[in-house]
Amino acid sequence: MSKLLAKQLQGRRYILLTDENVAEACMPMLGDFLAHHAPLDVIEVEAGELCKSSEVCMQLWSHFLELEVAKSDVLVCFGGGSVTDLGGFVAATFKRGIPVIFIPTTLLAMTDAAIGGKNGIDFEEIKNAIGVISQPEAVIVFPDFCDTLSSRQWFSGMAEVVKHGVIARGDFWEELKAVSFESHKVPLKLLQQSVLVKHAIVREDPFEKSRRMELNFGHTIGHAIESTYMQKGNLIEHGLAVVMGMIVEIRLAVNVKFLSPNEADEITVLLYSWFGNLLPTFPQFDEIRSFLYHDKKVESKKNVLFLPSSSGEMKKLVLASQGELENAYNQSIKS
Amino acid sequence: MSKLLAKQLQGRRYILLTDENVAEACMPMLGDFLAHHAPLDVIEVEAGELCKSSEVCMQLWSHFLELEVAKSDVLVCFGGGSVTDLGGFVAATFKRGIPVIFIPTTLLAMTDAAIGGKNGIDFEEIKNAIGVISQPEAVIVFPDFCDTLSSRQWFSGMAEVVKHGVIARGDFWEELKAVSFESHKVPLKLLQQSVLVKHAIVREDPFEKSRRMELNFGHTIGHAIESTYMQKGNLIEHGLAVVMGMIVEIRLAVNVKFLSPNEADEITVLLYSWFGNLLPTFPQFDEIRSFLYHDKKVESKKNVLFLPSSSGEMKKLVLASQGELENAYNQSIKS
Repeated sequence: MSKLLAKQLQGRRYILLTDENVAEACMPMLGDFLAHHAPLDVIEVEAGELCKSSEVCMQLWSHFLELEVAKSDVLVCFGGGSVTDLGGFVAATFKRGIPVIFIPTTLLAMTDAAIGGKNGIDFEEIKNAIGVISQPEAVIVFPDFCDTLSSRQWFSGMAEVVKHGVIARGDFWEELKAVSFESHKVPLKLLQQSVLVKHAIVREDPFEKSRRMELNFGHTIGHAIESTYMQKGNLIEHGLAVVMGMIVEIRLAVNVKFLSPNEADEITVLLYSWFGNLLPTFPQFDEIRSFLYHDKKVESKKNVLFLPSSSGEMKKLVLASQGELENAYNQSIKS
Repeated sequence: MSKLLAKQLQGRRYILLTDENVAEACMPMLGDFLAHHAPLDVIEVEAGELCKSSEVCMQLWSHFLELEVAKSDVLVCFGGGSVTDLGGFVAATFKRGIPVIFIPTTLLAMTDAAIGGKNGIDFEEIKNAIGVISQPEAVIVFPDFCDTLSSRQWFSGMAEVVKHGVIARGDFWEELKAVSFESHKVPLKLLQQSVLVKHAIVREDPFEKSRRMELNFGHTIGHAIESTYMQKGNLIEHGLAVVMGMIVEIRLAVNVKFLSPNEADEITVLLYSWFGNLLPTFPQFDEIRSFLYHDKKVESKKNVLFLPSSSGEMKKLVLASQGELENAYNQSIKS
């Protein structure tokens, strides 16, 4: 891993951005890399979503100016999705963009957050309200970092792998059913497939004009649930919120006749069997309502979702009102 | 102009961003457009460079959330380069990017700032320290707005037209010599040519990996002079700082034998004849020194400049130290 990084840096100056947990758990796995390739600085931010704030963002811009960071220097983000989201945004906006390399240390970041160039910070309790789409120069995936994860973190990452499984269906979905979730091990081949599902869609539609919106499956409801918890000062794992989102959105897919009840049941039963024990309580719909309009997939006040369909392809749904979302949500809570 | 704008908006919701001066001088020229196509809101910011701050940027992000601005809504920036720079950045970063339409009201913005997708805000006294490159959906150029400009504003815009003339040379340069600067009128054909010089270079190299750097001519020194004045609380016209930058950089082009003294003299004499009366005093080199490293065209601590050459093409110069810049600077001050 250190060799890959050294090769990618090609002797350029770099800054290492990480968080306090990663510094403790993962830094030793870099060996003597830092001693041989000293960074301009190692910057540690608070672990988790809280580092994705405008305050931290401005501190980093300011620190980069102090360090006289140039456009030819590189930012290396070493951490989970929060570090790559924050660092990706800071790098994309500092002097109109400096190169960034991601070394994701969580399964969630390896399979989702670090892939595809979306970055951002939270603003006034809206997740990723501010950000851009800007591709990293390289993403170095080193699956051994998954061994440092807590059980909840591992399951949070698997939620996005599962999401890619629902989107891709076919062989990927069948292989997923064979995974032992109790072992907390994701087969390397499955991780590669998961990354490639996302990568292929992003390559086709980097700026999310069409197909990339499929990747938002589970996220309209998932983000709203996550934001509701965040507002209460209660952070929940992103992936678990997405599982809850997928449960509701699959119900919606049945209601609008994209999926048969049997097809939906198969997926929902699996989701509960894999993640059921870990899911927090569904908030009341009234609590998540206001966050639904801040979803980025809103066109002319209408929520736009992509849902699985019987053909195996994802199908677009434009909702004229929140009524159908509310129905599907309440049905899911009760069942 | 109103018809063009209505057509471009295609009935979408929009926010109008402008500044207090433009609202007074140019808004009446929109006729009854606003009455027929009501915006979500009209936002007026302070006129000039001071609106390009992180505080104003965050106020706008916050206000957009209050207005529940969606990704399908449009930001219309109606003003000079400060309004298009600020608005371009806010639009590019809000929800990872909403469409933006520029209606430049100054000659500087028409020929330079609004063209090419560079946007940004100032940060800790560094001009455009934070920004991205993101193309507007449309730029609507309505030359009649130039009649609202002060003499200094008009000359500031002409400085960038002249810069495009030095870069393009040939016919453009000859036509420029025939312009009566006293009349404060730029022939429409010349304005079109100036826009097209920039547009062609940006199309070839939108992310400034190579040829786009030519457009930085005059700006390494110019930005440093502008930042020095800004630090003293004294704002000078961007274009006039660029003229001072061109004078120094042409001297440098002679010193490194890109240009003969005769060729350089022809350009320098014209620059003084057009702009000489308006130029502020050159600061001492020591005052501008620290700003030179914050220039975005710095690679491995070396300033990179593109300078005119005898062949008529712009030539790249990488400076190992600031010594050569300092020499050329001091020679220019004295002469």
